[in-house]
Amino acid sequence: MHVATTPLATTVRTAAPGRPLVAGIAGASGYAGRELVRLLAGHPAIEVGQRQARSDGYDPLDCDALAACDIAFLCLPHGESSAFGNALAEAGTPVVDLGSDFRQADDWTYGLTELARDAVAGSTRVANPGCYATAAILALAPLAEAGLLDGPPAIDGKSGVSGAGRAPSEKTHLPSVHGGVQPYSPTGHRHVAEIEQALSGLAGEPRRVTFTPHLAPHSRGLEVTCYARLTRPISQAEAETLYRDRYAGEPFVRVTQAPHPGLLHGGNACDLGVWVDERTNTIIAAAALDNLVKGASGQALQNANLMLGLDEGLGLVADGLGA
Amino acid sequence: MHVATTPLATTVRTAAPGRPLVAGIAGASGYAGRELVRLLAGHPAIEVGQRQARSDGYDPLDCDALAACDIAFLCLPHGESSAFGNALAEAGTPVVDLGSDFRQADDWTYGLTELARDAVAGSTRVANPGCYATAAILALAPLAEAGLLDGPPAIDGKSGVSGAGRAPSEKTHLPSVHGGVQPYSPTGHRHVAEIEQALSGLAGEPRRVTFTPHLAPHSRGLEVTCYARLTRPISQAEAETLYRDRYAGEPFVRVTQAPHPGLLHGGNACDLGVWVDERTNTIIAAAALDNLVKGASGQALQNANLMLGLDEGLGLVADGLGA
Amino acid sequence: MHVATTPLATTVRTAAPGRPLVAGIAGASGYAGRELVRLLAGHPAIEVGQRQARSDGYDPLDCDALAACDIAFLCLPHGESSAFGNALAEAGTPVVDLGSDFRQADDWTYGLTELARDAVAGSTRVANPGCYATAAILALAPLAEAGLLDGPPAIDGKSGVSGAGRAPSEKTHLPSVHGGVQPYSPTGHRHVAEIEQALSGLAGEPRRVTFTPHLAPHSRGLEVTCYARLTRPISQAEAETLYRDRYAGEPFVRVTQAPHPGLLHGGNACDLGVWVDERTNTIIAAAALDNLVKGASGQALQNANLMLGLDEGLGLVADGLGA
Amino acid sequence: MHVATTPLATTVRTAAPGRPLVAGIAGASGYAGRELVRLLAGHPAIEVGQRQARSDGYDPLDCDALAACDIAFLCLPHGESSAFGNALAEAGTPVVDLGSDFRQADDWTYGLTELARDAVAGSTRVANPGCYATAAILALAPLAEAGLLDGPPAIDGKSGVSGAGRAPSEKTHLPSVHGGVQPYSPTGHRHVAEIEQALSGLAGEPRRVTFTPHLAPHSRGLEVTCYARLTRPISQAEAETLYRDRYAGEPFVRVTQAPHPGLLHGGNACDLGVWVDERTNTIIAAAALDNLVKGASGQALQNANLMLGLDEGLGLVADGLGA
Repeated sequence: MHVATTPLATTVRTAAPGRPLVAGIAGASGYAGRELVRLLAGHPAIEVGQRQARSDGYDPLDCDALAACDIAFLCLPHGESSAFGNALAEAGTPVVDLGSDFRQADDWTYGLTELARDAVAGSTRVANPGCYATAAILALAPLAEAGLLDGPPAIDGKSGVSGAGRAPSEKTHLPSVHGGVQPYSPTGHRHVAEIEQALSGLAGEPRRVTFTPHLAPHSRGLEVTCYARLTRPISQAEAETLYRDRYAGEPFVRVTQAPHPGLLHGGNACDLGVWVDERTNTIIAAAALDNLVKGASGQALQNANLMLGLDEGLGLVADGLGA
Repeated sequence: MHVATTPLATTVRTAAPGRPLVAGIAGASGYAGRELVRLLAGHPAIEVGQRQARSDGYDPLDCDALAACDIAFLCLPHGESSAFGNALAEAGTPVVDLGSDFRQADDWTYGLTELARDAVAGSTRVANPGCYATAAILALAPLAEAGLLDGPPAIDGKSGVSGAGRAPSEKTHLPSVHGGVQPYSPTGHRHVAEIEQALSGLAGEPRRVTFTPHLAPHSRGLEVTCYARLTRPISQAEAETLYRDRYAGEPFVRVTQAPHPGLLHGGNACDLGVWVDERTNTIIAAAALDNLVKGASGQALQNANLMLGLDEGLGLVADGLGA
Repeated sequence: MHVATTPLATTVRTAAPGRPLVAGIAGASGYAGRELVRLLAGHPAIEVGQRQARSDGYDPLDCDALAACDIAFLCLPHGESSAFGNALAEAGTPVVDLGSDFRQADDWTYGLTELARDAVAGSTRVANPGCYATAAILALAPLAEAGLLDGPPAIDGKSGVSGAGRAPSEKTHLPSVHGGVQPYSPTGHRHVAEIEQALSGLAGEPRRVTFTPHLAPHSRGLEVTCYARLTRPISQAEAETLYRDRYAGEPFVRVTQAPHPGLLHGGNACDLGVWVDERTNTIIAAAALDNLVKGASGQALQNANLMLGLDEGLGLVADGLGA
Repeated sequence: MHVATTPLATTVRTAAPGRPLVAGIAGASGYAGRELVRLLAGHPAIEVGQRQARSDGYDPLDCDALAACDIAFLCLPHGESSAFGNALAEAGTPVVDLGSDFRQADDWTYGLTELARDAVAGSTRVANPGCYATAAILALAPLAEAGLLDGPPAIDGKSGVSGAGRAPSEKTHLPSVHGGVQPYSPTGHRHVAEIEQALSGLAGEPRRVTFTPHLAPHSRGLEVTCYARLTRPISQAEAETLYRDRYAGEPFVRVTQAPHPGLLHGGNACDLGVWVDERTNTIIAAAALDNLVKGASGQALQNANLMLGLDEGLGLVADGLGA
């Protein structure tokens, strides 16, 4: 039985008894927007009231109609949420922005749910993390918090093509991608800033990272493998305990021997693996997730559930399709 | 026009004028053996005389028939070349072993061609490097030689399924692999020893590495991305110059902006990319190759050409199919 | 709101108010069994009580424990359900057999839901159709019923590798499959008999078909394209009307312009397309589905819902993940 | 040893002894153009003299420079070869057009090599067949010639995405293609006309076909499966003999048990399989090829070799990469 776990924030319009909460989605034609529609179709307490896609004639978007919803999700191209998101928030409508515009903004809550649950529950402006950032931060957080990171870790990311969005391009054309895994943006990816911001906050001191993403020949799914030198030697058992304790009780973060995005299509879990290479005093932490679910719309819904005072897992499953 | 570039080694049986050299292949039914047969079909000076696959009844292998060839290639499962390879070599037959048995053996030449060209040309016992090792060593060699490696680099490898061999398994079953990139053997891969041996030799001091391979949803092709802290800051321009100078004139090692195994199917090139992340004083060096060609049978043929006094590139092309 | 649409059959044990119905699954480790577990995890009225996989020590299976369940699903290898299924049915336990053993048995109901809804609802022995058969029969049924089939239609099937089961083999090894679509069993596939049985029943006369399946480089998903000569010319509009009328109101059969299994991963829909080639008096009818859902476990659950007097769609969604 | 097999046609400029023949390529940046460049790089008697791609500034194309070559290949978008091809031919330059403009033109030779070898050798205007058409015609020719086709056969084609060209589109975006095989253009594909033209010529009477192509989740490779009712019953053995006899001695058409495009990447072979379904008096004929080689640039080179009086197989191999 799913029940509200938190008092409703005062700025949230409470649904009348029996009336479902109404969600508005701006930018509903991209992969994130469509995934959100899919997830909300199975949500017991929220229904989609507004679905505004430019390709369907909503140009400009109808801000008033979105403001009248109980929750607004912005699935706009990066750079386009800025004025719009603040206008909605000022109108008192809880907003989850799936773009990158507000991820470094002071007056928005960075919504990596497991690290900011209470803040999200009390916020009406949530900046949803990037897909790579979600995976990398969850993989490195226990090390940052424990003071175990010696220098900047290296983060090697591999994403399926859906991570590049719905617009076709020469770079993501199937024949360009099909034959192997290739690096891109080796030093300047947009997600570096949010990863460093999050790790710095957890470590209590400025932390930097190296991050190189790769494009892989599949559609959904994302994996990052992080390599971090340790400030002191730890055993494999200690490492596993550190991670299991950190994420104990989390429904959507699981410590496993074999994280694999292929097991998570459609599910909201982030699976973590951790291994100590004692010969080089290096810890290897890997994270796998579905970039469209925990890496985007699933986490957005997880956040929205909290903002609306609902059970965090409503409308979500951890496991993916597998096979 | 292809002509011999090196005097024939004294232990090599010279072909009579007009007579092609004869190759023997032990273990011709696996991917490496089949690829060698494919490459030799287009070789102007070597033909396949013996092709012994256990699945075709050669059990035990006919050592005498192989010893009578001008060159023998061993494409046997790891661990099975040991007695056999030495027997052939003692019989005076030049041998290229594609397995891992002799890669740390003192009396065998480790045949990473670009780093051991002269030694290979003068050797009759060549241990062909592993596929990941070829990529990682070529990517890191300029840094090791220049004393730029500060501590153990992290090597993140991604291979298509053909790298796991021809025997099907649950791990490599298409539905297990199709949905994403997954890490395996995070700290204990067989290739670590040969990578460390090679880098230590180049650096003039013991070097260690962290290496985590990943299984990716394609067939041929392999990519490694290496992350190394630098002993001193260098610029992007310096890094590129270092790599371009190191591999100047090499027909099968190319420095590029976008290494991608998808462009190299069937070709013997190893494409390298190098990027400096100045914010973290880290260099990122990536290498892409076809694991069955430059990572196995192509490099074996490149070595055999040298051992037989032929042009190193005979029967090989650098470029792959693309698309 | 989901409510029972049919009175409970007398042989069905009614759950006490508030108590969920209990399902038993024999053979829970294969793809069909795992998919059933996934679907039942989201079912509001049925929970998994017995999950017996031989790989987990259930060898022999515990028939009594299964018989005590409200519904039993048999996900055993083809040929192994025979004695077991009848024993359960005789014990009064409703059984859905996902294997092929009972698909031609007189005392079992062939459970292609949309064509046998009432019979399924009144049955305790349901033989769940094969994946190809489900697609082909749904695609050809309107033509068979309307007497439009002139001679045996040709059915060209393409399935992802999960259709071949969880056991890896040389034939389904990723490198064997990755580079294209290949025919197999061109004339003798197991599903021919059930397709012909169903079409003969619908046409009221014996009908034969030619069926050639193909293995395609993906995991889930199946498509069939059927080519049938027409007994009389019909227009494109007539054909579409025929199909839309036949499946009007069906939640899991949809007539569309572009059936594509890639849109249906995890969903229980079968999408149909129909086109008339007037130049050759041929009708082309295509069907796409997820072979593990509508082609196996989803249809099994659809049938079980009917057998238990529940809403047919409980625990199922039509749409798949897309992207 | 490769030698000329046919006297040079009088309109062909003979290369001076020792001078390679010079090829000009118009439209060298698409997949077909690039594949031709790859093939010619390994050709012992032809080198690329002109390589004109619009993306490299050749807009308009330099017709005079192409006319000065020994052979011109047109790899232009469909519809753009028209004026250009005739101008070159009138200038006396042998032309192979890889587009569709001249495939129904009386004054051009339809260059399906195995069916028109002598005509091609004596022609200076060759229209290279389409990829699907090459496969379908080779699969059905023995039946058409033997008078065995009863009514229009159904041709079910499956192509990798490279067949749709290099321009990315929503339809061919990896996430749109990755999850299954989907039909497109079910009744109106451009290749129908050339298939019917060829079969009509072989049968000596007008023949029609139904053809439905499908898009499959791979890059190179194409397969067609043809279903034809027989005018008289034949046995499996007769069918195999018919096909083996028809293509006896052909280096690039092979009759096999298991045609599979995955074995043919980069090779010029078309592999055929034939099976009789006696129960329905239907013959199933399947053909597999690499759409960029035998389906485009390889066959173009095969034709050019003939037109230039060279061995037909120069610069080509039958086998593909496999694995």
